[in-house]
Amino acid sequence: MQLIKCKYLLRFSMKLLFSDAKAELSFNLCKKITKVYNSATMVTEESTINNNEGQSKNAAKKLAAKAEKAAKRAEKTAAEKKQKENVEEAVGEDYSKDKYGQSKLIQSGEKHLERNFVPVDQLSKAAEKGSKTVWVRGRIHTSRCKGKQCFIVLRQQSSTVQVLISVNDVISKQMVKFSGSIARESIVDIHANIVKVEQKIESCTEQNLELHGLEIYVVSPAKPQLPLQIEDASRPEKNDDPDSLKIRVNQDTRLDNRVLDLRTPANQAIFRLEAGVCKLFRDILSKKGFVEIHTPKIISAASEGGANVFTVSYFKESAYLAQSPQLYKQMAIAADFDRVFTVGAVFRAEDSNTHRHLTEFVGLDLEMAFKYHYHEVLDTIANTFTEMFKGLRDNYANEIAAVGNQYNVEPFKFLEPPLRLEFHQGVQMLREAGIETGDEEDLSTPNEKLLGRLVKAKYDTDFYILDKFPLAIRPFYTMPDPNNPKYSNSYDMFMRGEEILSGAQRIHDPDYLVERAKHHEIDISKIAAYIEAFRFGCPPHAGGGIGMERVVMLYLGLDNIRKTSMFPRDPKRLTP
Amino acid sequence: MQLIKCKYLLRFSMKLLFSDAKAELSFNLCKKITKVYNSATMVTEESTINNNEGQSKNAAKKLAAKAEKAAKRAEKTAAEKKQKENVEEAVGEDYSKDKYGQSKLIQSGEKHLERNFVPVDQLSKAAEKGSKTVWVRGRIHTSRCKGKQCFIVLRQQSSTVQVLISVNDVISKQMVKFSGSIARESIVDIHANIVKVEQKIESCTEQNLELHGLEIYVVSPAKPQLPLQIEDASRPEKNDDPDSLKIRVNQDTRLDNRVLDLRTPANQAIFRLEAGVCKLFRDILSKKGFVEIHTPKIISAASEGGANVFTVSYFKESAYLAQSPQLYKQMAIAADFDRVFTVGAVFRAEDSNTHRHLTEFVGLDLEMAFKYHYHEVLDTIANTFTEMFKGLRDNYANEIAAVGNQYNVEPFKFLEPPLRLEFHQGVQMLREAGIETGDEEDLSTPNEKLLGRLVKAKYDTDFYILDKFPLAIRPFYTMPDPNNPKYSNSYDMFMRGEEILSGAQRIHDPDYLVERAKHHEIDISKIAAYIEAFRFGCPPHAGGGIGMERVVMLYLGLDNIRKTSMFPRDPKRLTP
Repeated sequence: MQLIKCKYLLRFSMKLLFSDAKAELSFNLCKKITKVYNSATMVTEESTINNNEGQSKNAAKKLAAKAEKAAKRAEKTAAEKKQKENVEEAVGEDYSKDKYGQSKLIQSGEKHLERNFVPVDQLSKAAEKGSKTVWVRGRIHTSRCKGKQCFIVLRQQSSTVQVLISVNDVISKQMVKFSGSIARESIVDIHANIVKVEQKIESCTEQNLELHGLEIYVVSPAKPQLPLQIEDASRPEKNDDPDSLKIRVNQDTRLDNRVLDLRTPANQAIFRLEAGVCKLFRDILSKKGFVEIHTPKIISAASEGGANVFTVSYFKESAYLAQSPQLYKQMAIAADFDRVFTVGAVFRAEDSNTHRHLTEFVGLDLEMAFKYHYHEVLDTIANTFTEMFKGLRDNYANEIAAVGNQYNVEPFKFLEPPLRLEFHQGVQMLREAGIETGDEEDLSTPNEKLLGRLVKAKYDTDFYILDKFPLAIRPFYTMPDPNNPKYSNSYDMFMRGEEILSGAQRIHDPDYLVERAKHHEIDISKIAAYIEAFRFGCPPHAGGGIGMERVVMLYLGLDNIRKTSMFPRDPKRLTP
Repeated sequence: MQLIKCKYLLRFSMKLLFSDAKAELSFNLCKKITKVYNSATMVTEESTINNNEGQSKNAAKKLAAKAEKAAKRAEKTAAEKKQKENVEEAVGEDYSKDKYGQSKLIQSGEKHLERNFVPVDQLSKAAEKGSKTVWVRGRIHTSRCKGKQCFIVLRQQSSTVQVLISVNDVISKQMVKFSGSIARESIVDIHANIVKVEQKIESCTEQNLELHGLEIYVVSPAKPQLPLQIEDASRPEKNDDPDSLKIRVNQDTRLDNRVLDLRTPANQAIFRLEAGVCKLFRDILSKKGFVEIHTPKIISAASEGGANVFTVSYFKESAYLAQSPQLYKQMAIAADFDRVFTVGAVFRAEDSNTHRHLTEFVGLDLEMAFKYHYHEVLDTIANTFTEMFKGLRDNYANEIAAVGNQYNVEPFKFLEPPLRLEFHQGVQMLREAGIETGDEEDLSTPNEKLLGRLVKAKYDTDFYILDKFPLAIRPFYTMPDPNNPKYSNSYDMFMRGEEILSGAQRIHDPDYLVERAKHHEIDISKIAAYIEAFRFGCPPHAGGGIGMERVVMLYLGLDNIRKTSMFPRDPKRLTP
């Protein structure tokens, strides 16, 4: 009795699984399913023959376990099975059975050189040039079947095109059904005719044409149940858009499933623009005679006194992760490289859980010898930013627009040459706005942001330089202002009211450096190597360090630095 | 009695210090010296007056301490003092006393915009354009005084020019003496006339002109005693040069004093060429549609099984330093970036003290989705190398020549397209050369090098690709060859017989990945995140990682990777 129930349950559950349209497609397991099903039912039959109460309990347990196993495997191939069921269900022969299906694993067994693949965003051009039939590889962005037709939106990076697969004398009903059953985000190869359309297809980036499918193969199936939907993750989040749906994907869900999250058009654009920031930074500086260097990340002594530094086990010793490449940039200057830059990871063991702090970020660092005045360097950095902003505006308009489709992006305003204020002027502006702040007091984050707004209102720029910071609030190696002992030859630069660069003329004289370190009550023995670097003649020099992720965040006016770090690290996040 | 002795000793020691031509020049302490000397002698006089045995002992001690202090300070300004003595010693007035000396610390107090600085390598051009008087900033490379003349070789990066300062009606004997007393490697500003010379100056890079000094100021003094001489560190180390001096600076002395060592023409060239390798790598790939990404260096799980990985304290947890950006490159591919590259620090906690291992190096990594065959990627990488070799040959000829002046640099030979052999062909070549090696045995370092020589002899190329490595010796994520289960879709690339790239088609199917991981007896739970990345559809892809320092070392034919890492890290070296 129990056994019959069990057998019934097994059959029922498998049927359920096979009919589950959301079940996962999984290549190369499809062959196993019949075998598993057969062996499971065979066991059941056998058990029925050798029926006795004791055995039947054991058998039932075994059966349940096997059933579970079989069910699990079956789940993976449900969609494939469904397709097979469709075959049975269909009236007549499947005359297009060789034109669709799960492709076998691409293992470089064949080259298929005859297939003329065209990128989605090049389809119009291909059509103009007379191409009628093309191959396209992309993801199933969405699909819906209506009677004998299946409409697929095929996505390739940020480009989309509509694909229509409809029953005709070469495309079977089974093929259409199969096409509609492919899980979203699966990668498919489609062979299709390019067809011009009368009415614009508003839902796709290719609006004047669609593809009429001839063949469709799944290259890499996606899990049918995704932890987030690309549509949801791409939805506009503009405050001024009352019509926009309020479904949001929260930051942690996005970051936990970064592989999916990064597929949104905004993210595709953000990281292409970020690559642009690096490229522009390097190209502009290379043209100005800067040499790229690489500085070690593992260092023997904590660079800035030991606070906020990560410790590394280095064989039998302890070492640290560099908080800045500064000493090495300076050594390169002392070693006659004259002008250097470096792009690389920078580590800060700060337990700051804010919208703008990361524990690991990419530093765009530069250092430059000058003749007599650090403004030679300040002007070079300022001009580098101007050139970068122009380069982004001129070469990344599509990316900026793509980000603007999802987030509020106010165009980034800048002056040429950039606005330069002195610290005391900033203090004055804050005081005029009713803020009490001391002459030698550092800018608090709210004051920094307020000053940004005041500057924007007065000068209409999102970028400015604040020069001549108070000596008391800068590190010991900062060169004091020779004309006013309260100030120093140091500067910060701001984008939309947030600091993105901090820099200064460094003290290049070892004796004066010792004097200033002592003033700061720094243990000289711990910075002996730093001081030593200047004992063989070193030109006066200045430089600065830029946080790459901050530049991208603030250029685009985004609200969180995790949006501009591909795999962000903060005190609470070490994965993926 | 003792007191008189002490006083004598004090005077004697100060005299000795003042006359020490090698003593260090130190700005801004010069004023203090007279004061200190006076107070020290004053104390002595006073003590003499109040003479009694007990007091005199104490006084002697005090005097000794003061003398020591005074001596220390005096040491720093000895050269300056010497110059002052020269004034006393000189017959007549120092009529050029405002035209030379220690410049005050450059603290950005003035801009000196009137000074027309010309780079040393632009002097000829400046002369052609009619410049007669110029300012030049450079280092004292060498100097020698002969009677009323002082010859200085002024060095600026890799360029040198001869400067003559000789007594005449505007240049005093004192000024010439001062010029000769400046320590090597000190940075000076020289105002001078450009004068064409009849006979080529063989010892300088500027051979057709010299400078006749009008003013000379020390901008940044060097310690008079250097731990290594630039001349020694620059000396040719060619085996075929019997005339070359055998004085060498050993590797550790160089690295301990890297700021000095990097000033040699060969080092100036090596690191400029290295910047070129990075620039070419990025530019070539960007043109091919690759997007630059940045991957985290701090990771939560050891990427390749936990061996050879550095551990980091991450707040209250433990984390690791990434041994490769591979997972992140692959995730970027799964996230639709299609073709990505990244340049960044890679960490290996291997206790390997060889000529080609570093614990931290710069990885030039790339990953690319392909349609059907990983050779689409292999060909892209191969072409990237060809373009890079051409770029180096065409744009860095001066740097290559500069390195060649010190080291044996055989021109780097390459074929276009590059030679591609299969692993079994390599094995065959080795066997023909009498080496016993198994079909599925990895290449030992000696065999790898021998194969490089055999390939060079047979095909006349220093670069080749070895394709189809045995599956057994590659990591679990390597795609097996579909046609022969013994082999895999993986490859290494070699320069001058040493591996500089390792790569493969990766398994992009999660189930197959699990199967292969189990085969390698890897704990699936530890790589769950890696496997998960492929569950949302991932195109077939392949890639590889290149060691930047190895490429530069082998391109130039250098013998040690520490020559191509600016601040190398190995198991025994964490500084500077």
